[in-house]
Parts: sequence; C-alpha cells; structure tokens
Amino acid sequence: MIYLDNSATTKPYKEVLDSFIKVSSEYFGNPSSLHELGGKAERLLMQARGQIAQLLNVQQNEVYFTSGGTESNNLAIKGTALMHRKRGRHIITTGLEHASVKEAMEQLKELGCRISVIAPDKNGFVHAEDIEKEITPETILVSVMHVNNEIGSIQPIEEIGEMLRKHSKVVFHVDNVQGIGKVPLDLYKANVDLCTISAHKFHGLKGNGVLFIRDGLLLSPLLSGGNQEWKMRSGTENVAGIVAMAKALRLTMNNMEKHLERLSSIKRFIIDEMDKIEGVAVHTPERNSAPHIVNFSIKGFKAEVFVHALEERGVYVSTTSACSSKKSAASSTLMAIGIPEKDAKSAVRISLSYENTKEEAEVFTEAVKETVIRLREVMKS
Amino acid sequence: MIYLDNSATTKPYKEVLDSFIKVSSEYFGNPSSLHELGGKAERLLMQARGQIAQLLNVQQNEVYFTSGGTESNNLAIKGTALMHRKRGRHIITTGLEHASVKEAMEQLKELGCRISVIAPDKNGFVHAEDIEKEITPETILVSVMHVNNEIGSIQPIEEIGEMLRKHSKVVFHVDNVQGIGKVPLDLYKANVDLCTISAHKFHGLKGNGVLFIRDGLLLSPLLSGGNQEWKMRSGTENVAGIVAMAKALRLTMNNMEKHLERLSSIKRFIIDEMDKIEGVAVHTPERNSAPHIVNFSIKGFKAEVFVHALEERGVYVSTTSACSSKKSAASSTLMAIGIPEKDAKSAVRISLSYENTKEEAEVFTEAVKETVIRLREVMKS
Repeated sequence: MIYLDNSATTKPYKEVLDSFIKVSSEYFGNPSSLHELGGKAERLLMQARGQIAQLLNVQQNEVYFTSGGTESNNLAIKGTALMHRKRGRHIITTGLEHASVKEAMEQLKELGCRISVIAPDKNGFVHAEDIEKEITPETILVSVMHVNNEIGSIQPIEEIGEMLRKHSKVVFHVDNVQGIGKVPLDLYKANVDLCTISAHKFHGLKGNGVLFIRDGLLLSPLLSGGNQEWKMRSGTENVAGIVAMAKALRLTMNNMEKHLERLSSIKRFIIDEMDKIEGVAVHTPERNSAPHIVNFSIKGFKAEVFVHALEERGVYVSTTSACSSKKSAASSTLMAIGIPEKDAKSAVRISLSYENTKEEAEVFTEAVKETVIRLREVMKS
Repeated sequence: MIYLDNSATTKPYKEVLDSFIKVSSEYFGNPSSLHELGGKAERLLMQARGQIAQLLNVQQNEVYFTSGGTESNNLAIKGTALMHRKRGRHIITTGLEHASVKEAMEQLKELGCRISVIAPDKNGFVHAEDIEKEITPETILVSVMHVNNEIGSIQPIEEIGEMLRKHSKVVFHVDNVQGIGKVPLDLYKANVDLCTISAHKFHGLKGNGVLFIRDGLLLSPLLSGGNQEWKMRSGTENVAGIVAMAKALRLTMNNMEKHLERLSSIKRFIIDEMDKIEGVAVHTPERNSAPHIVNFSIKGFKAEVFVHALEERGVYVSTTSACSSKKSAASSTLMAIGIPEKDAKSAVRISLSYENTKEEAEVFTEAVKETVIRLREVMKS
C-alpha cells in the first residue's frame, strides 16, 4: 500500500499508540480526582501541555486541549463571536477555508453576524491589504488558514498579523491543521491570537486537538461544566490521547528538522512528472506552497474514477478534502481560484507525510501515467 | 489498590484497549475518504453504531457520537435552546444536575433564556408534578439526570416522561452518565428525546460519548463543519474510540445481567457497616438508589483528610464529583437535599464497578472504622 492521503488522516506512530496504552492502563485516573491516581494523571497532563507549549514555542497556559481541529475552529470562531458580541458582529474570513470554519461562520450569520469572505487570487493566496479594506469598528475577528488543505498554498500569515497590529481589538485566528510540522509558523511573531491544530494529521490519534489561546484572551466556552482547561473547555481530559499527541508532535517536529528537504524534493518530483503528462494541469502554486500537498486535474476524467483506478494499484489518494469527498459538488477552493467547474471535478489531491519515500512517488507517478493511458483507451473504444 | 471511585472514571477493560489498538493501527483511514481504507473505517463506524443502538434499544440513526458526557449534555441543552429559540426560551432543570448541565444553563441565561430549577426533596428526588407546575407555553426543554452522581438517587424518569406526553412540544433530556449499565432505562417507554452517556464511566476510553437524539428531532450543532453525524456533530470520527466504546458497553451490559445483584449486595453491606459507625451519616437514599454509589459524612472530619487517610491504605475514594473535588465549596447536591454545610464538607463518595469484590468492600469498611478511630485520637491529643 502506498498511502498518499495524509491530509485526510495519518497512520498513528507506533510510539504514539504505545504511550496511549501505557497511560490508559496504568494512569487511568481522572485528573480532577483528589487521590494520587488523579494526581498522576494530572501531572501527565501538565507534562504533555508543557511539551506541546515548548514545541509550539508558546506558554503552557496558552495550550488548550480539545477533541480536534473541528472543535478548535468552532471554539475559536463561535467563542470569540459570543464573547465579543456586544462590541461588534463583523467577521472576516477567506474563500479558502475548511468546512469547519465556513460552517461555523454560516451559523453565526443566523445569530446576526455579518461575514466578509476575502477571495483568493488565481494562485490561491489572499492578501493582507484586501483583508484590511474590510475592517470596520464592528470587526471582532479575522480567520485565515495557514496552509490550504486542497492545493497547499501558504497564506501570508505574518503579513496579515503585522497589518492587524494596527487593529489591536481584532482577534486573529489561524487554522494551522495542515501547516503544523510542515511549514514553520512563529505564533508570537505573526501576532496570532488563536491557532488550531489536530493530532491525527501528524500521526497522533483522532479525537485530540489543541487551540492555542493567547494569554489573557477570553472566549465564551462551547462546552461548559467542570471547568477543566481554565473554564474554556470542560469535560474529563483525554489524558492518554493528549500524552500521545505530545509524543506525535515531538516526533513530527524531529522529522521536519531531518526530512523537510527530502519531502520537498519528492513533491517537486511529483509536480514535474505530472507536468509531463498531456492533459494534466497542476493547481498547487509553484511558489509558497506546502511540501506535502499536490493537487492536479486530469482533464476529461471524473476524479472519483481516478481515485478508484489508482486504488486498484494499491495507491491511496483523494479527490478534495476528506470532509467534502463524498459530496458531488466541485471543490470550493478550486472554484475560488478560478478553475472551471469541469476541471475542478477532475481534481486529485495527493498529500505526503515524512513516512513516504521517493520510491513510492515513482510508483505513484508511473501509476498515474499508465492509468491515464488505460482510461483514454477505454473511453475511445 | 482498591479503586472505589468509578463514578469519576473507570479503568478501561483490556478488550477495549485491544480493540482501540487494532482499529488505530490497521483501520486508521478517515471514514469520509473515498478509497477502501476510508470505506473500512466507515463500515467499522456503522457497525459500532449498530451495536450501541441495539444495546440502548434504539434505532441506529438515533446514536450520535461526541467527545463525551460534557459535550453530549452541552449539545443537548444548547443545541435545543438555539434551535427552538424562536418558539420559546424557558428551560426546566433540577438542583441535582452535573456541572455540565448547570453551567450550560448558566450560559443560556446570558443569551436570554429563563431557567427554572426544581428542588429535590430531602431524600434526593424530584417529582414530575413539581416539574409540570413550571411548564409554560414558552418551555422548550426539561433536563433531568437519571442517577445522581453524588448520592446515587434514581430520578423518576418514566413518570416525568409520561407527564411530558401531555406537553408534546417540550423536549426531554436525560443525563444518563451514571445510570448506564447500572440502572435500566427504556428510552422509548420513558418518552426520552435526548440522552447522554459517556464511555469512560463504563470502562471505555475518555474522549468518547453518545448523545441519543430521537428520530426527527433537530438540534443546532455546537461543532459544525464536514457534516459528519448527520450534520449534528462535525469532526473526523474517532473510529477506534467509538469501536472501543461499543465493546465497553457490551461488556458492561453483560456484567449488569450477571452481576447486578452482587453489586447491590456489596452496596447494601457497605451502607450497613457505615450505619454502625458512630458519627457516620449515610446520604444515599434507602430506596430507589443506584447499586454502585454510597455517600456518607463522617462528622467532624473534612472529607479531604479522610480521602487521603484512606489512600494511605490503598483505598481510593472521592469527596464529591470529580469535577468539583478541587473546589472548597460544599457539594451543591447535598446542600440541595438539606444537609448542613458542615456535614456536606465531610461527605465521602464511594462508587463501585462490576470489578469490585465483597472482599474489597470488607477491607474498605475496616479501613473506614480504623481511620475514624485513629483520626479521633489524633484530634483528642
């Protein structure tokens, strides 16, 4: 099996599973319990928080644990909107965002918020000046993803953050689910207030995520109750999942240091090979794109047909984002950057991890070439 | 170690951890992915949903997966309030509820909801007629827990559900986190619309829960995005955790069939032994209480002192609920049933699972007796 759908989900590292089992069986106490079994669980939780804070280069009290990327995005957006609703009800976002950002905004519209959606340029980038134009005294939040999950374009987070220094009341949220461990981002330098990451995208376990909340910033909690996570997110902490997430993040960050260049060169190789195939158009921008995502259309074929044809050869790829892959609609990201609907419906995404090898990339590109030839013959006959 | 804090959290069954590891390592695909690795994960998810539906005696499409009891309670309450806010803004609950119900209600007050809190009688029970008196045309929701987490009183859910048949527009939510697998509850017969359960309270894994949502009932989602769980709860499904939860629930239901009487007799034994100790007052009601919870005050001692003294003997118990155990305030449940504050601050909770034995209960009761004697001597000297 050659698994090239790592933006949908990744295979957990063995060490991650080992940590999970150890904590679940030996330190199963509730961190809120007064006795030592609770105390041990609480210390493990603190330790994991410290490790993650260090890896993200932020303070421990800025790391909040959630059930994943969707919860972190919803908490960031709805939590800000509800907390600051008396100050203003205007939010700015982009046409590139993940469904969990888009849909959270849609719900806020029903509650009286106004949403401005910034269009990306034809290469898949939004620009700080386009965002700034929309800012009014009513604006409470700007939400921009770091790395687009479909085409891999890297948004100018630092520039946007710099621009927002002039608008200090506007909260800045960054969805970094696809960027973490692949594209460096200094949260303080980029003036980010809220940042989402999700464990299962970096070989951690599903059901675990982080929301970075800048020290002093208050959100209205989505899940209230026992006041865990400094009242921002109640519910018994998934200690084993959190310890496993800390391990996954450390291993991923280590891999980034060692293997980022190799990953980039594999991506480069795949793009070059795709460019050679007649009728293939690569949508991932040439510059400022992440090292692990390549998106391309194979004109004349529906993407689903291609996904299944590659699967027969043991190669797993994706059409658009996993969340949208079962809808028949064309990718909204590709439409937003001006790709015609027909071509958008032919778009295939491959997404690498540090586990993938050059050899796998070669098998993949050969498989694409042969599949194109075979499918064209089928269509002729 | 004698672990008697199973209402705070339980030790996962070995089979539960085995399932988790198998799914996480072999079937790690995203259920939304088009390829077969996604397909396998999706089938496992469907299978687990079917198993849980069967064990709860409801339909598959009524089982929604969440990150746990707190999320299920918040989704039930806030989701109903937001969905039906145009019809009415009045909610009825009780003075016995868990923090995740209480605090969700507090947040809704800020959004303009009116909350009526029904006081329990001195034995820890609310009554259907007291709830009915509060119902107005503005009432959209009644939320009552099944088994109280601190004293174990079983609320008259069937009677309340029966009464609510006359008020068909009022949604009925039951927090069954402490009741599941210990006290039978027929959701259809009791006319329940929404019901919360949490995996780690029955030897499943933290970070997993269910909200039963009666067929046709709509809630406003707290987590929106990729439209998983029929749009009611987005986010990549924690397939391994869900499969593990289905297994934990099946094992627990089997244990209930085999060991419920034994559990009840252990509880009976503990209450009888506690009644013999001078200065000990049992708060768990004589009748209509769950088979696994015993709450008592040891007059003259702070509960924390007692918890730690028992811990020195390898016996793990709790003061109040885990979520509240680090607050210095007296238990609101005990205060609500008229226990004086001083005695409420001396309250100790033990909570059993089917894993506990009569021998452990004997060690525990001896430990209480000896600790009382020792602490009284210390206080005299």
